[in-house]
Amino acid sequence: MHNFNAGPSILPGEVFEEAAMAILNFRDTGLSILEIGHRTTLFQSVMDEARQLAKELMNLDADHEVLFLHGGGTTQFFQVPMNLLNENQTAAYLDCGVWGSKAIKEARLYGNVDVVASSKDKNYTYIPEFKIPSDAVYFHYTTNNTIEGTEMLSIPETNVPLITDMSSDILSHEIDFNRFALIYAGAQKNIGAAGVNMVVVRKDILGKVNRKLPGMMDYRQHIEAGSMLNTPPVFAIYVCLLTLRWLKRQGGVAAIEKINQAKAELLYKTLEAKQGFVPTVAKKDRSRMNVVFLIPDPLLEKKFLDACKEQNMVGVKGHRSVGGYRVSLYNALPLESVKALTDLINQL
Amino acid sequence: MHNFNAGPSILPGEVFEEAAMAILNFRDTGLSILEIGHRTTLFQSVMDEARQLAKELMNLDADHEVLFLHGGGTTQFFQVPMNLLNENQTAAYLDCGVWGSKAIKEARLYGNVDVVASSKDKNYTYIPEFKIPSDAVYFHYTTNNTIEGTEMLSIPETNVPLITDMSSDILSHEIDFNRFALIYAGAQKNIGAAGVNMVVVRKDILGKVNRKLPGMMDYRQHIEAGSMLNTPPVFAIYVCLLTLRWLKRQGGVAAIEKINQAKAELLYKTLEAKQGFVPTVAKKDRSRMNVVFLIPDPLLEKKFLDACKEQNMVGVKGHRSVGGYRVSLYNALPLESVKALTDLINQL
Repeated sequence: MHNFNAGPSILPGEVFEEAAMAILNFRDTGLSILEIGHRTTLFQSVMDEARQLAKELMNLDADHEVLFLHGGGTTQFFQVPMNLLNENQTAAYLDCGVWGSKAIKEARLYGNVDVVASSKDKNYTYIPEFKIPSDAVYFHYTTNNTIEGTEMLSIPETNVPLITDMSSDILSHEIDFNRFALIYAGAQKNIGAAGVNMVVVRKDILGKVNRKLPGMMDYRQHIEAGSMLNTPPVFAIYVCLLTLRWLKRQGGVAAIEKINQAKAELLYKTLEAKQGFVPTVAKKDRSRMNVVFLIPDPLLEKKFLDACKEQNMVGVKGHRSVGGYRVSLYNALPLESVKALTDLINQL
Repeated sequence: MHNFNAGPSILPGEVFEEAAMAILNFRDTGLSILEIGHRTTLFQSVMDEARQLAKELMNLDADHEVLFLHGGGTTQFFQVPMNLLNENQTAAYLDCGVWGSKAIKEARLYGNVDVVASSKDKNYTYIPEFKIPSDAVYFHYTTNNTIEGTEMLSIPETNVPLITDMSSDILSHEIDFNRFALIYAGAQKNIGAAGVNMVVVRKDILGKVNRKLPGMMDYRQHIEAGSMLNTPPVFAIYVCLLTLRWLKRQGGVAAIEKINQAKAELLYKTLEAKQGFVPTVAKKDRSRMNVVFLIPDPLLEKKFLDACKEQNMVGVKGHRSVGGYRVSLYNALPLESVKALTDLINQL
């Protein structure tokens, strides 16, 4: 099988094996990981190691905390402004894709939103120029637009606190994670399985908002409780731990970046060269995680889909909101799968 | 092993086996359930069957919807008033335990709270008499107090919409689920694994609140999206499906209630008869799910703990907030485990 799903998506084979084993007999306890208390030393060690390993892989300084939270990235769309934006204040947002535009909508429930730039005019197929107002409470953007296939690899120069949705490219390439005030990422792409969300937060930005927060929405309470304010999604966090361990064994972020770079280059080069395949994204803004393209000729389209099916390739269809094709190249996808796909394309 | 954990807690052995299999090869697709898209027909069928089966096991009418949501029961503490209580309105709450008191605290962020009665004066060891004001927007109570070991098996007579936290006794005994306007339950006791929350909601109570809701907090949006507003906790929902199927095979709620009744009777009878073991809860209010007791004599206490360890019995310690002992008898715990424990107690 070659799994190009956009998320939930491929994870390393050894993670599946270790996860299945833990369901039958977790660390030789005779118990399943699904039936152990989250306050046991057994699970506490999972939580501790996962948070520590995430810090290590991102080279985080002591000002940053790592949390594993419920709710997925979509919950962060409102949890971020709820914690950081007063009603009379303004946050700056970049409108670069479906997810970013949803984040903007939620932020407006809590304060003023200044949309500094948008690429909606061309269906979000490029990253627009933008300027961050120096008096914004924070600047929010999506580093990688999973649906549209654009990615911002560099960090904007600004003194305004930076907040990013990194759901689909976190840990896929080297970047100075300490430059961000807050990072959030649904786990189901590069971190682990669906059902948990990783949040990295610089502690000094918290506690400044006027409104009273429900406990589950308050980052400070989660930090204080060591990411165990309530029963955490135990198994999903364990899968994160296994995936983070795997990433460390591969050599960490720097090593995986080289492979990700090779995968993306090979695929884009093949699409450029092949008659009838049309990448939709401006060259300079192309994502290394999600490669989006069209096949305008219905006959070629059918040949492509039939060949994918025959060769056990899944997940190449585009998001239901934009159509076309999308091939996702997350960390766990081996270069061999991209080679198999490019061979298939070349032979059409 | 005998697993008396309070949650996450024991699930049927066949659920563990089927769950582990699905991680290695889900329904003969060659893919892990952890790597399939949630919008695939494969996962859609899991979600549909889980929701349908929950409706069937609870005999729900067409006015009630079943949702599987992120965030655990603790998120419902604020999501309920956020959706249902205007600032100038009053909701009635019963203060019967640690969890209920947390729900009260969160509700106060959104409107007025009338605490109709409290058993805090005696460490929540009984269910107090109470009267529900007829003009309350809703009445909220916890059916089973996991930490303190009390349970309300009957439903209060009132025209006020009833809202309950059923996290620790849902599907454990017959009750007219249609009498409730909203029920929520963290899955990690009687429904499945940690990381998902089941919400049953009568649709006519929604859409009446003044405030604007973030998408993820709006029950109506979740209903409209078929419980797939964002990436759901895929695997946790699959474990729910497996557990609900198991419950149906046992004969459903009526059949499991008989076993639960037998388990609780046997254990309480043993504790009553045995010198040195002291149940803490008023007889009429004793929970069938969580049996709480003290062992005042430190020597007997040590003998008890040593014997539990020797006989592979885990999870008998009380909640860190109250101490003592707590034995949880959820649906998946076989009568044999209770017999083994009562034999152990009798032999001390």
